[in-house]
Amino acid sequence: MLNLTFLGTSSGVPTRYRNVTSLIVHTGPGRQWWMVDCGEATQHRLQRVPYSVHDLEGICITHVHGDHSYGLPGLLASASMTGRTKPLILIAPAAIKAWLDATLLHTELFLTYPLIHIDVDSTDLVHERPGLHSLRITRHALSHRAPSVAYRFEVENSKWQLDKHALLAHGVPSGPAWGQLHAGKDVTLMDGRVLAASDFRQVQTERAVVVIGGDNDTPALLADACAGAQLLVHEATYTEAMLQKVGPGPTHSSVQRVAQFAAQAALPNLILTHFSARYHHAEGMAELAAEARQFYHGTLYLARDFDTYELDAEGGLTLRASQK
Amino acid sequence: MLNLTFLGTSSGVPTRYRNVTSLIVHTGPGRQWWMVDCGEATQHRLQRVPYSVHDLEGICITHVHGDHSYGLPGLLASASMTGRTKPLILIAPAAIKAWLDATLLHTELFLTYPLIHIDVDSTDLVHERPGLHSLRITRHALSHRAPSVAYRFEVENSKWQLDKHALLAHGVPSGPAWGQLHAGKDVTLMDGRVLAASDFRQVQTERAVVVIGGDNDTPALLADACAGAQLLVHEATYTEAMLQKVGPGPTHSSVQRVAQFAAQAALPNLILTHFSARYHHAEGMAELAAEARQFYHGTLYLARDFDTYELDAEGGLTLRASQK
Repeated sequence: MLNLTFLGTSSGVPTRYRNVTSLIVHTGPGRQWWMVDCGEATQHRLQRVPYSVHDLEGICITHVHGDHSYGLPGLLASASMTGRTKPLILIAPAAIKAWLDATLLHTELFLTYPLIHIDVDSTDLVHERPGLHSLRITRHALSHRAPSVAYRFEVENSKWQLDKHALLAHGVPSGPAWGQLHAGKDVTLMDGRVLAASDFRQVQTERAVVVIGGDNDTPALLADACAGAQLLVHEATYTEAMLQKVGPGPTHSSVQRVAQFAAQAALPNLILTHFSARYHHAEGMAELAAEARQFYHGTLYLARDFDTYELDAEGGLTLRASQK
Repeated sequence: MLNLTFLGTSSGVPTRYRNVTSLIVHTGPGRQWWMVDCGEATQHRLQRVPYSVHDLEGICITHVHGDHSYGLPGLLASASMTGRTKPLILIAPAAIKAWLDATLLHTELFLTYPLIHIDVDSTDLVHERPGLHSLRITRHALSHRAPSVAYRFEVENSKWQLDKHALLAHGVPSGPAWGQLHAGKDVTLMDGRVLAASDFRQVQTERAVVVIGGDNDTPALLADACAGAQLLVHEATYTEAMLQKVGPGPTHSSVQRVAQFAAQAALPNLILTHFSARYHHAEGMAELAAEARQFYHGTLYLARDFDTYELDAEGGLTLRASQK
């Protein structure tokens, strides 16, 4: 239904084990995907996963900090150098657009495709794609040193299904009439009867709702965004003890605070990410996982770079692969 | 005497095998080093070599294109996040400084150290460090789509040496007097004689001169810069046949043109780099090497990412290591 691939799961600085933040949201239809955040060397990570920048529909940036945005110039430039012509949507703070404009100007970069900027502050519903494969992206304000948002992805895949039993009961066997009805056209039978498509077909819809947070020290701000969501992806930079030690300056969340919020919000699935470099070893990650499991009893993952998670139509979350 | 470590050797875009351009010039004294160019993910490469951003004295940027500069914001930010306070020199076009100013502003980046910008267009001698470990960096205009320069690094390591034979001939045995003379102080002996330090010590100097080109379609522009140089590092983006095929638009050099120039300039050592992605496999590199050897018979290397080359005091060039 919807796949997530983590390209970077480190807070602030890259380490040898984890890059700074970027996430692939494979929404479909087909190979189409979205990116949330684009830290430096995201284009390098992309070369190791089966997603092409040419199938990228849009990029959502949660906030202006470099560990979430410094990969943009190189990604945009490489898309040009490899011949992209399809417009690319960029949902981001106005400052990111101003920075990219300065980048184009000063580094003599000419894009071969239109970059369509949607100012994240201008509207709640930042993107809507209607149709049988619909996508709605809304943004939800968070609390961080720099203005930061979460993005809520609501994907609906719909298809028309014929009521075959009813057709057979009406004495209409499988044949060309079924195809016309399925396509929404009324049919006049040989015997003169008229069958209305609306009587014999109905839409079946599968739905996935995922909330992807930016940097944030107050998970409860996502209560509304998480209503009806199957999955929250949220930063969990430290343990609660370490957060107390470093103080509120960095305005990040602890594992405990995110886990408590996810439990209160009755979220069935939770993926933690954006870990401080001090935890980038097995013991560190085990410490974070143990804290999370104290407070949250749903399906829980601590993301690693190159992990791919699948959210199925029933709302189940599975780790599919760790590509390299 | 002087070590070079290549962090990226690809033209335009990174591939799985080679990153975009950046080069470590380990000048000393001690751990001090310089960087020439800083493509995206240079800070990631730095994590795999024994050089710290905290020992980085300065960065030289050859031209504004992103594959030579998009690693700057992340490198500067990470140096801040890991506590650098020492000033950092940035020798670069004014447009790079303007772009970094826009980056600081729009992405709310606050550096914890002074960034000292030297406008590469303002002067030929862009850096001079006097003393026993002296460094002179000059810049030399090249020909490329965007204004581009080469940097000539002239390193001199000097030390005072005592004329021990003369001292013994004067009846002055090894002792405290030798130390004072070595330090440049005149000495009055027990018998009243005065020895002038200038009579008994002299400077011994070792010297290394390396010219490091930016993107450039006319190697002969470096004739003056290469006078007395032991080593030229130059882009060789394609074979001559491929350059003819792609036409003059990209304003890059072929292997043949660089090799012919190096032969004419009687350069004893040549390192080629900045290879088009189409050659990033063994056959491609063999094709480039074969073309170079047709025209140049000095010491020749085709740089690979993580290669470290040592230029010794006699002007000999050796591949020391390929770290990862």
